[in-house]
Amino acid sequence: MSRPAPQDVRTVVCAGAGVIGGGWVAYFLARGYRVVAWDPAPDGEQRLRHLVAAAWPALTELGLAEGASIDNLSFEPDLAKACAQADFVQESAPEDLELKRTLLADIDAATPEGVVISSSTSGYGMSEMQDKCTHPDRTVVGHPFNPPYLIPLVEVVGGASTSPDAVQWTADFFTLAGKSVIRMEREVPGFVANRLQEALWREALHMVENGEATVEEIDLSITDGPGLRWAFMGPMLTFHLAGGQGGMAHMLDHFGPSLLSPWTRLEAPELTQELRDAVVDGCEREAAGRTIDDLVAERDRGVIAILRATGRA
Amino acid sequence: MSRPAPQDVRTVVCAGAGVIGGGWVAYFLARGYRVVAWDPAPDGEQRLRHLVAAAWPALTELGLAEGASIDNLSFEPDLAKACAQADFVQESAPEDLELKRTLLADIDAATPEGVVISSSTSGYGMSEMQDKCTHPDRTVVGHPFNPPYLIPLVEVVGGASTSPDAVQWTADFFTLAGKSVIRMEREVPGFVANRLQEALWREALHMVENGEATVEEIDLSITDGPGLRWAFMGPMLTFHLAGGQGGMAHMLDHFGPSLLSPWTRLEAPELTQELRDAVVDGCEREAAGRTIDDLVAERDRGVIAILRATGRA
Repeated sequence: MSRPAPQDVRTVVCAGAGVIGGGWVAYFLARGYRVVAWDPAPDGEQRLRHLVAAAWPALTELGLAEGASIDNLSFEPDLAKACAQADFVQESAPEDLELKRTLLADIDAATPEGVVISSSTSGYGMSEMQDKCTHPDRTVVGHPFNPPYLIPLVEVVGGASTSPDAVQWTADFFTLAGKSVIRMEREVPGFVANRLQEALWREALHMVENGEATVEEIDLSITDGPGLRWAFMGPMLTFHLAGGQGGMAHMLDHFGPSLLSPWTRLEAPELTQELRDAVVDGCEREAAGRTIDDLVAERDRGVIAILRATGRA
Repeated sequence: MSRPAPQDVRTVVCAGAGVIGGGWVAYFLARGYRVVAWDPAPDGEQRLRHLVAAAWPALTELGLAEGASIDNLSFEPDLAKACAQADFVQESAPEDLELKRTLLADIDAATPEGVVISSSTSGYGMSEMQDKCTHPDRTVVGHPFNPPYLIPLVEVVGGASTSPDAVQWTADFFTLAGKSVIRMEREVPGFVANRLQEALWREALHMVENGEATVEEIDLSITDGPGLRWAFMGPMLTFHLAGGQGGMAHMLDHFGPSLLSPWTRLEAPELTQELRDAVVDGCEREAAGRTIDDLVAERDRGVIAILRATGRA
């Protein structure tokens, strides 16, 4: 099998070069890869070069990898010719299941044996998309967040016919390429971050519909409230601190009953001993020896840094 | 009526000086107020002075108001003697309804006529808490986020017997004192930010319970994903950008059907024309003339600033 080791990838093929695909192109160029881009739109190359040029100052400011250059981008109007050069393929076509099923099969037919094909999809599981491929074992979801050239998160998950090796390879490759990788054990609609974001978004829509808050109030409540902590300390560790010295254990044992209060339209799961322990143990693992006092000090430094970075202090 | 103008407040009484009340004490001292604190715990004064001393370096770094000093704090073990000095009272007792009903009545009895009494409660509406007061018209919820000395958000809302004047006064006072104020028109359980936070938290608990994601993955998905944007651009304006040049209108018109997808356990409201327009108009108001390109540039600058501020770039 001709799959290169993750550290030996030189040429990344980006199939679909809209906002997400173009963001990937910019990112891979900045990390020093050679990128071959394909897009079926008549003005695809023009739009892509505009997007990359717009992102480049930010990427330069953040620091380019050795040898990184916009000159390492080539546009190839023939999908098969593009894929033939790939050490790795990132597909970012529109969210249309039939289109993706067909496109992935075309990519699969033209890409060297073993080379991993990753999809940016947010809406589908790979199980739904890979069934027309001759080699579905090397097709994986690698779901980024917009803009992919700045937001580190990539969620990696295989489909029913994906080999565990391909999933592992993809996670390793994205990690080497500088991304923050969540490797999911199984497909869940929306993956992780979008599920959390979607719950918040739906609650916000309910509030607007019921006249409970305006759009501006909803945004202010996040940017000037919990959003200041979430940029560096996630919602679980944030609540670990809300429990005082007793941490998440105290939080759940004392405020668990508030899960029954009508603070959102989303019904909470029953707080079983098992769920309680899973959350408490997870926070302890994540704290990794840091005391509550350590974490409070980190939180305060982080909030101050962010207030300053965003011009509010 | 002896209610001072918001800009004439000199002495703030903080009734209850635990983590939240103590955070308020530190904040008001840093803003140059004289603070009289009361707490019934035997070691209340000691714990409070410890908390204020711990917060003071951060507050100093952020910049103290003229005349601000820890020496402007006095501890008064007699609640009535404390309240008698108040130009404004902030109550931060434990979340126990009977305790708060009684305490607010005691504060009301001892506080000069007209002076506003604000409660830090997260769990109750003022309508439930104010009924034992002789002057419930001046009792208001002023709900902060932890830690109150750093997080700007305060949600202000009155109860059934609160006068609109008192609500307005409280919003004006907190704004003058440097807070970001959301003035709610009516009581909703959890107010605004906690409802959004709670929807996300419950979805996270479901994911842990179902083995869909670990605690660490949930936190990483936020800190390295949408959390990077939410520190300066709320969830609504974030989705305004997700719609490309068409903004929120394009987003809702094209991705509205995804509200029916099982991306969270929270059912979405029906996307009526009215709701669609309310959200689109809200985003336009909030954008205040900034084009999508302007907002994209702001987002990128913000994400880079936050990646740097938190040591990730």
